[in-house]
Amino acid sequence: MRNGVVQASGGGAMGIGEDADERRGDAPEARTKRRPRTLLCMDDRAFGLQFPAPILTRLTESAQVGDPVRVRTLDSGEARAGLADCEVLLTSWGCPPVTGRVLDSAPRLRAIIHAAGSVRGHVSLETFDRGILVTTAAAANAVPVAEYALAMILAAGKRVPFLARQARSYRSDWSYAAAHGELSNRGRTVCLVGWSRTGRLLGRLLRPFDIEVLVVDPHADADAVAAQGARLTTAAEAFPRCDVLSLHAPMLPSTRNMVDAAALALLPDGATLLNTARGGLVDTGALARECRSGRLYAILDVTEPEPLPDTSDLYDCENVVITPHVAGSLGSETERMSLAALEELDRYRSGRPPLDEVTRSAFGVMA
Amino acid sequence: MRNGVVQASGGGAMGIGEDADERRGDAPEARTKRRPRTLLCMDDRAFGLQFPAPILTRLTESAQVGDPVRVRTLDSGEARAGLADCEVLLTSWGCPPVTGRVLDSAPRLRAIIHAAGSVRGHVSLETFDRGILVTTAAAANAVPVAEYALAMILAAGKRVPFLARQARSYRSDWSYAAAHGELSNRGRTVCLVGWSRTGRLLGRLLRPFDIEVLVVDPHADADAVAAQGARLTTAAEAFPRCDVLSLHAPMLPSTRNMVDAAALALLPDGATLLNTARGGLVDTGALARECRSGRLYAILDVTEPEPLPDTSDLYDCENVVITPHVAGSLGSETERMSLAALEELDRYRSGRPPLDEVTRSAFGVMA
Repeated sequence: MRNGVVQASGGGAMGIGEDADERRGDAPEARTKRRPRTLLCMDDRAFGLQFPAPILTRLTESAQVGDPVRVRTLDSGEARAGLADCEVLLTSWGCPPVTGRVLDSAPRLRAIIHAAGSVRGHVSLETFDRGILVTTAAAANAVPVAEYALAMILAAGKRVPFLARQARSYRSDWSYAAAHGELSNRGRTVCLVGWSRTGRLLGRLLRPFDIEVLVVDPHADADAVAAQGARLTTAAEAFPRCDVLSLHAPMLPSTRNMVDAAALALLPDGATLLNTARGGLVDTGALARECRSGRLYAILDVTEPEPLPDTSDLYDCENVVITPHVAGSLGSETERMSLAALEELDRYRSGRPPLDEVTRSAFGVMA
Repeated sequence: MRNGVVQASGGGAMGIGEDADERRGDAPEARTKRRPRTLLCMDDRAFGLQFPAPILTRLTESAQVGDPVRVRTLDSGEARAGLADCEVLLTSWGCPPVTGRVLDSAPRLRAIIHAAGSVRGHVSLETFDRGILVTTAAAANAVPVAEYALAMILAAGKRVPFLARQARSYRSDWSYAAAHGELSNRGRTVCLVGWSRTGRLLGRLLRPFDIEVLVVDPHADADAVAAQGARLTTAAEAFPRCDVLSLHAPMLPSTRNMVDAAALALLPDGATLLNTARGGLVDTGALARECRSGRLYAILDVTEPEPLPDTSDLYDCENVVITPHVAGSLGSETERMSLAALEELDRYRSGRPPLDEVTRSAFGVMA
């Protein structure tokens, strides 16, 4: 049904902006594209990072924008004015919930194009009921996360973060290296929990290496996983075999504390837990016990709670590395999400299928 | 000339082992291959790591070996006995110099196949004068080094090693992250100094990322570099632009202290020096000054001297990471070099060209 809507409007039903396109003397293909009325909604930080002048210029080549081009909330007078005639709502971090009332005030709204990862904070099921297209830039946000995870998987194979810490106290006495077992990346086994956008990209990034990639995900397709050179299996089979357990699952009621004491107990001695997803996926207390005993290593970009309280002894564990939630898009990495949103806008206005639609059924199981 | 020797012997001139091959009932292709008399020379550590029983079994399928199969030195009685009829000397770490006298005692020697990286410690120019083939497993040894470098380049983009250190003292106060500038891997520039085997592999591994790769190497071919998606340029152009300067040059008289105070001064504020090659490429004192001032970051798997003395304040610098020379082949990674040597042996005995020959001219400019 939603495709029908896109096809219809993509076919030129609204006719907005065609005169302007003619004047610019674009190629025939470009001339046939409409420029849908578009309103941006996000907080100051996202707008400043993601929509600098060059990106705004590109936006106005694809869309008609009002004044202001961007609103922070959806219930102010200027927001209501913008919503009244907008066809596309382009959102990012800080966009408030698009409630039924907001949808009522936007009768021409056909697409919510999100220039960041999770749409759970602002999109509701009612949006799907009304046949509005929802897209996400989660694949663009997955890039830096997968890069961080790849770096840490390769670093963990040689225990780099832990050796680097010990070098400060042991100095020229290199005896500390031997205590970590084999310092090698050849023949390692990595288990990706969650064949999400980040999990899939990481699987692809791991292909050049002599590393076996196992995948645990109740929703993944074994053939799709195999096509990426990885293997879909169960936690019961994968956990006892893996050198690194890397989490890429969404934070949902059903995944809270999925890595609990029993799951951690399955991991072999010396395995590394790598969490770049959400802290709530892990039972922090159980992890702390395994790390304090020295049995497991952990590299945590996210924690529960976040940040950990000053009293947490995870900060002091020799075999734990904590970074302040930096794996996701930061700085110029956020522009990758803007460009993904502009690409979705372009596909929408020319009637092509979206690159990364959030369907009603996917909405329930993604981050 | 050397190829001629290989062709002649590969064609069956020596005839050793053909009966044995017949008895094993190998495929016709395998039956035509000779099993040249082969002597291993390396220290206990290399032999234990690199030639466990399965690898020794594979060796004896390709070569005739004596008893002992391996010697530690080249001047003992058993070494001289082994040398007297050996056609291939298969070497690794700890092999002593193959002097003119050793060569005199090995009149049938046609190939020195090295199951490790540098042949500079044991091969002399005289070897080439005698038309003996020299091969190296440097490409196999480059794998873990390039993997370590890739991990650290991606980690450096987000300042992971430095944030991880500060997290221990700042704990829940995340203010420390802002002081490091942009924490992003998008649009970074990496300069590889040395289009060596490691440099080339690293260039290839960097291709999936939004990272510009510049190469500085007086011996590299611009087209070959461009074919890998990188760009050959000069230090004067590359150093002021790069976020990470990664060293992959050989340690030669001409490269000692090539990264001196003047070179470091060219790097922009906040750049990271990554050294996985040899400590002597860098003027340690000049680097310490730049790191103490906080202007540059450094990730050092090798140093000069190595290890650094306990009194070195590089151990204490907030923006310096030191690991105890672990980037190269360790543990099962060393088997990759054994397998590369067996592949060279197989190519040699079947008259095919070597995968990685050390020519007389390359001998002078490689690690």
